[in-house]
Amino acid sequence: MNCGELLIIGGAEDKCLEGEVLNKFVELAIRAKGGIGILPTASEIPEEVSKEYIRIFRDLGVSKVEVIKLNSRKDAEEQAICEQLASFSAIFITGGNQSRLSELIGQSKFHNTLSKAWHNGMVLAGTSAGASIMGKQMIVAADTMLNDDKLKVEIGKGFGFLDGLLIDQHFSQRGRFDRLLSAIAENKEIIGIGIDENTAILVKDGQFEVFGQHQVLVLDGSKSDYINITSSENGSEELTLSGFQLHTLTRGYRFDLHTRKLLMKKGIQS
Amino acid sequence: MNCGELLIIGGAEDKCLEGEVLNKFVELAIRAKGGIGILPTASEIPEEVSKEYIRIFRDLGVSKVEVIKLNSRKDAEEQAICEQLASFSAIFITGGNQSRLSELIGQSKFHNTLSKAWHNGMVLAGTSAGASIMGKQMIVAADTMLNDDKLKVEIGKGFGFLDGLLIDQHFSQRGRFDRLLSAIAENKEIIGIGIDENTAILVKDGQFEVFGQHQVLVLDGSKSDYINITSSENGSEELTLSGFQLHTLTRGYRFDLHTRKLLMKKGIQS
Repeated sequence: MNCGELLIIGGAEDKCLEGEVLNKFVELAIRAKGGIGILPTASEIPEEVSKEYIRIFRDLGVSKVEVIKLNSRKDAEEQAICEQLASFSAIFITGGNQSRLSELIGQSKFHNTLSKAWHNGMVLAGTSAGASIMGKQMIVAADTMLNDDKLKVEIGKGFGFLDGLLIDQHFSQRGRFDRLLSAIAENKEIIGIGIDENTAILVKDGQFEVFGQHQVLVLDGSKSDYINITSSENGSEELTLSGFQLHTLTRGYRFDLHTRKLLMKKGIQS
Repeated sequence: MNCGELLIIGGAEDKCLEGEVLNKFVELAIRAKGGIGILPTASEIPEEVSKEYIRIFRDLGVSKVEVIKLNSRKDAEEQAICEQLASFSAIFITGGNQSRLSELIGQSKFHNTLSKAWHNGMVLAGTSAGASIMGKQMIVAADTMLNDDKLKVEIGKGFGFLDGLLIDQHFSQRGRFDRLLSAIAENKEIIGIGIDENTAILVKDGQFEVFGQHQVLVLDGSKSDYINITSSENGSEELTLSGFQLHTLTRGYRFDLHTRKLLMKKGIQS
């Protein structure tokens, strides 16, 4: 098996001809001939969301761009939809609500087909909710409550393409550091990855490389020797923890997911 | 010289009889007989701000509570005001704008008198702007721009009572992680301390202990082997950095500022 690349986007990526993130996706997608399938199931307005991506992928020179219409748990078991899925060389999962993706697709025939196709080299991209769903676990609720009490973070099941990683998106733009820290405090073996808007990581062979405009934050609690989580009556949560490792990366820098260390840009020595 | 305790408060501390943070301050203040001086210079509405503190300190049993009326650079050179300052056993610096404190008081006779008094055991507390001013450096501008570009953090001069620490306040409540990280990326030998609202650290003898409701975050870049800061045309700033250490503490936990390690609560083994 030779898994395809995963392009995990922090949301709000530029949808113009110069947009680095979608250009990268198209570059990967067109190495094979199947074309791009857009999966807008996370969104409550799938047609509107799809329209934008159809336009930009066509503008970027992809001839076959189709929308996968999957709006129910029943659709996710449909042989015809699974066959359509398997015909593409790359899938783009849009934003919306990640819980819709897990509720409608999780553990279905469609999920299974997607997983197999990826194991056989299909390129998968996801933005926003479509980014969160890529992990085995994902954050499903409890945004950072600015000027309010902090709430307990809720963790749900993702599609499981990224083992040992937890993705959060719109990261700096929505001030989500606290919720990622909470999530990793409760699962310290998992690496937390916070991806900013118009920014992406490309995961392949146990490494990732950063593309796009802003920053990616990596939170690693595996070396921590003390974690204590206190919940108060109102459900708010306070953390005591020691020795978490923090890294941030911008365009071109890479990260080794096994050694959990920053790698320099290609061609540059540390 | 035997410096007094420093109680550094993240803003919005409870001003009721049960409020842990102000109770702690009063407990320290009344060990000596001078009473409490309130310094509201950071605020544009010093009388209103002072009124609340006069009430709560009296309610907590302090008989001598006075306001230091210092509203100009000239006042900060006044012998009479410096003598009033020296008569107290504890000073409480209110919130407002930390730049007002440095502009009106920095390097003045008043600053000098305050510094001497602290070196001789006077207890100093500061909340919000009054917390930021305690360090040698402080963040003076550039709040985290949620849903907007990140701006460059501006660093100014504080009163210098906390060498090697940079304080930020209203920390989780205002989503200020990014701005603290930027500041420490530019000054990696300084420890960044983010204090939540209604939460405080009590600094004494190279350690601090946490009091109050929420969390204190410690950011330590001293072991980082790579930091690269990129500024874009619009002044926004992106960071690449490796191996920052992160700790968070809640009530009762302590932190050793020399070893830069979390210490357990008193009487509890790790």
